Amino acid sequence: AADPGVRARWWTRLALMVLLQALLPTCLSKPKDEYHNLDGYGYSVIHEEIVKDSARTEAYRSAILENKSHFEGKVVADLGCGLGLMSLFSAEAGARKVYCIEGSQIASTAETIIRRNRKSDTVTVIKGRIEEAVIPEGEVDVIVSEWMGYFLHYEDMLPAILTFRDKYLADNGLIFPSHARMWLSLYSDTRWYNDRISYWKDVYGFDYTPIVSRVVEEQFVNPERQHLREDGVVSEPSLVHSVDMYTATLEDVKDIRATISSKVTRKATIHGIAFWFDVTLEGDEHSALLDTAPKAGYTSWSQVVWYLQDAFNATEGDDVKGTFAMMRTDRGEFDVAVRLKSPSRVELEAFDQSPSTMFQNLYERLSFEHGIYEEASDNQLHRLLDYASRLQLGFVAAGVSAFVLGWMVGQWH
Amino acid sequence: AADPGVRARWWTRLALMVLLQALLPTCLSKPKDEYHNLDGYGYSVIHEEIVKDSARTEAYRSAILENKSHFEGKVVADLGCGLGLMSLFSAEAGARKVYCIEGSQIASTAETIIRRNRKSDTVTVIKGRIEEAVIPEGEVDVIVSEWMGYFLHYEDMLPAILTFRDKYLADNGLIFPSHARMWLSLYSDTRWYNDRISYWKDVYGFDYTPIVSRVVEEQFVNPERQHLREDGVVSEPSLVHSVDMYTATLEDVKDIRATISSKVTRKATIHGIAFWFDVTLEGDEHSALLDTAPKAGYTSWSQVVWYLQDAFNATEGDDVKGTFAMMRTDRGEFDVAVRLKSPSRVELEAFDQSPSTMFQNLYERLSFEHGIYEEASDNQLHRLLDYASRLQLGFVAAGVSAFVLGWMVGQWH
Repeated sequence: AADPGVRARWWTRLALMVLLQALLPTCLSKPKDEYHNLDGYGYSVIHEEIVKDSARTEAYRSAILENKSHFEGKVVADLGCGLGLMSLFSAEAGARKVYCIEGSQIASTAETIIRRNRKSDTVTVIKGRIEEAVIPEGEVDVIVSEWMGYFLHYEDMLPAILTFRDKYLADNGLIFPSHARMWLSLYSDTRWYNDRISYWKDVYGFDYTPIVSRVVEEQFVNPERQHLREDGVVSEPSLVHSVDMYTATLEDVKDIRATISSKVTRKATIHGIAFWFDVTLEGDEHSALLDTAPKAGYTSWSQVVWYLQDAFNATEGDDVKGTFAMMRTDRGEFDVAVRLKSPSRVELEAFDQSPSTMFQNLYERLSFEHGIYEEASDNQLHRLLDYASRLQLGFVAAGVSAFVLGWMVGQWH
Repeated sequence: AADPGVRARWWTRLALMVLLQALLPTCLSKPKDEYHNLDGYGYSVIHEEIVKDSARTEAYRSAILENKSHFEGKVVADLGCGLGLMSLFSAEAGARKVYCIEGSQIASTAETIIRRNRKSDTVTVIKGRIEEAVIPEGEVDVIVSEWMGYFLHYEDMLPAILTFRDKYLADNGLIFPSHARMWLSLYSDTRWYNDRISYWKDVYGFDYTPIVSRVVEEQFVNPERQHLREDGVVSEPSLVHSVDMYTATLEDVKDIRATISSKVTRKATIHGIAFWFDVTLEGDEHSALLDTAPKAGYTSWSQVVWYLQDAFNATEGDDVKGTFAMMRTDRGEFDVAVRLKSPSRVELEAFDQSPSTMFQNLYERLSFEHGIYEEASDNQLHRLLDYASRLQLGFVAAGVSAFVLGWMVGQWH
């Protein structure tokens, strides 16, 4: 029998070897960015879209400049400040100190802009994550943040805001926005439906209906972002979720469940379900509403629509009831499900809808419009990391088996 | 010393183990598709865009149906046939046999469509690469193909067509299209320029010019696809490349060089260089021209524009001269360079412009419009495969080292 000391040494080396095998692919893989939607915000085109969204910018601008009593001599935090426009508005409204906190690399441009506009004494840019930002004053009087994403929550920025609020917001402090609401409505678009589905019945005299099943398969899987026609909204909006920014907890926004009740306003064929949100920026002197409904006109968010595989007919007065659920997964993705009881057949489910799914969607459109295609988007990065972790398991297994085989060979001699 | 027979057995087992280690990640990884732009063509939305491009479809339709003498009783190959519409036109024009060759998975839908339209006796779908297709007759009388991509060549399909032509086209056989030409012109768009650049001088009263350098950096790197305004074309088009489909060789389309001469038609500020192409479908009875110029109106290709970092002024009558070069790299990507001698400062270069760069661009736009974001696009797929092959090397190395270590441990005892 071998010396137990020697055997222990070898067992240590074996353990080290296995560890090395496990670590090697980890070193090869890219570090996982928990803020998976930040990368895209490094591009100027996205900020261009945001700044030029006048409904959005004007809502915040008026809320800040027409509520000067909340800002004069106060400490303000602008969370996810981007190019710092709201920080500049806050300085203009008389804030004593503004912290402009931004995690993407656009922060350095914000810094230059603030210097250029001679507001560096008042506005300080903090580059980094909102949750990790340190406020020297120990508290802030006002939080300003434009955290809303597609489907209200898809950018997954709200948890960071709530964490910051609990840590830093002074008693009687103010939050812009103060409230957020998500709405749902039935949507009808016969022209769209004919163009995508009926079109194939006669293509230059040929029957192309075999492609319809593919179109349906590709089209109806996920909720998607679109500018919806106002007259396509054919039922009264049903409130599916409401956030009070002063009292909401992290738990409140992790697992959202609601009952749906939406009264049909005109006889129509229902092709999908539309979602949008609005937020209130409520101060003592002025309140602003930022509404992203189809009837409110253009915003950079547009609306989200989820097309039905089978359209159904509805009549004025029908009360369509059902349930809505949206759960935040541990990976910061969302599972979304809609079930309409009447008609009973409508069930829509989407899993692992990451913040980047819709974000990427915006990014891709901007890429098309403005011509940026250098970087892999977040979604693909995630797939790559999934793939790497699968490989990693195989790696360890193969390493261990190779070691054991080698050991057996060594024993044989 | 060990028995040499036993040692040999163990060496064999060692070799098998290493092989297994090398194969395991290969099994995990997706097969590499050399036709890197084919995957996207598996989506119906892309075929929808193509079929609905009436300029394109009508040009081919008229060329086929109004040149029946070329088709009656003949063998036709429709290369990259997609949903098989041109194969159906060819059958309608009297072809004895049509081979509809398609590499993407949409081929199975094409097959169903052809069966549904009772043309299966005439039209046979061959699923696979054009270069590898086997034509039982040993030759074809007519080649029909719609191979053109952004920048004419970016889809990199032409080499496959020329290879097929050399192998199968009968003497006096016909090719649709017969000729292709790529054009270049100076482009002016002051409104666009102001919107993207001048806008930042005054954003709600603040100076945002520090972002301009970022905008420029993101915007002016690569040629990009856009629908250009007809009145923005401010010089006579300069022919940069011409392909005779009957005589062009693989070498001819690999390294394209041209001199530029473009006479300015009106005083204007030049913001970019526009590119487009046209093709001729020339038969004995009828000739069709498919033109993708801005003045020709909508096509699914639009145009390609390459914005200049520094706009310059030009006067009516100026003859802008320079050089153009486009080289196909071994990876099926393109390096493109434009140099204008007058004004001397204009130099544009883009490297590794893959077929998928622009293709992806189309795909992304369609994704936005039609809502498909399930699959990684080709570019990302390539990155993933690069990554997998790097991992694979590490895998083999780690496996071998684990084996050797195990062998040493075994020896020790």
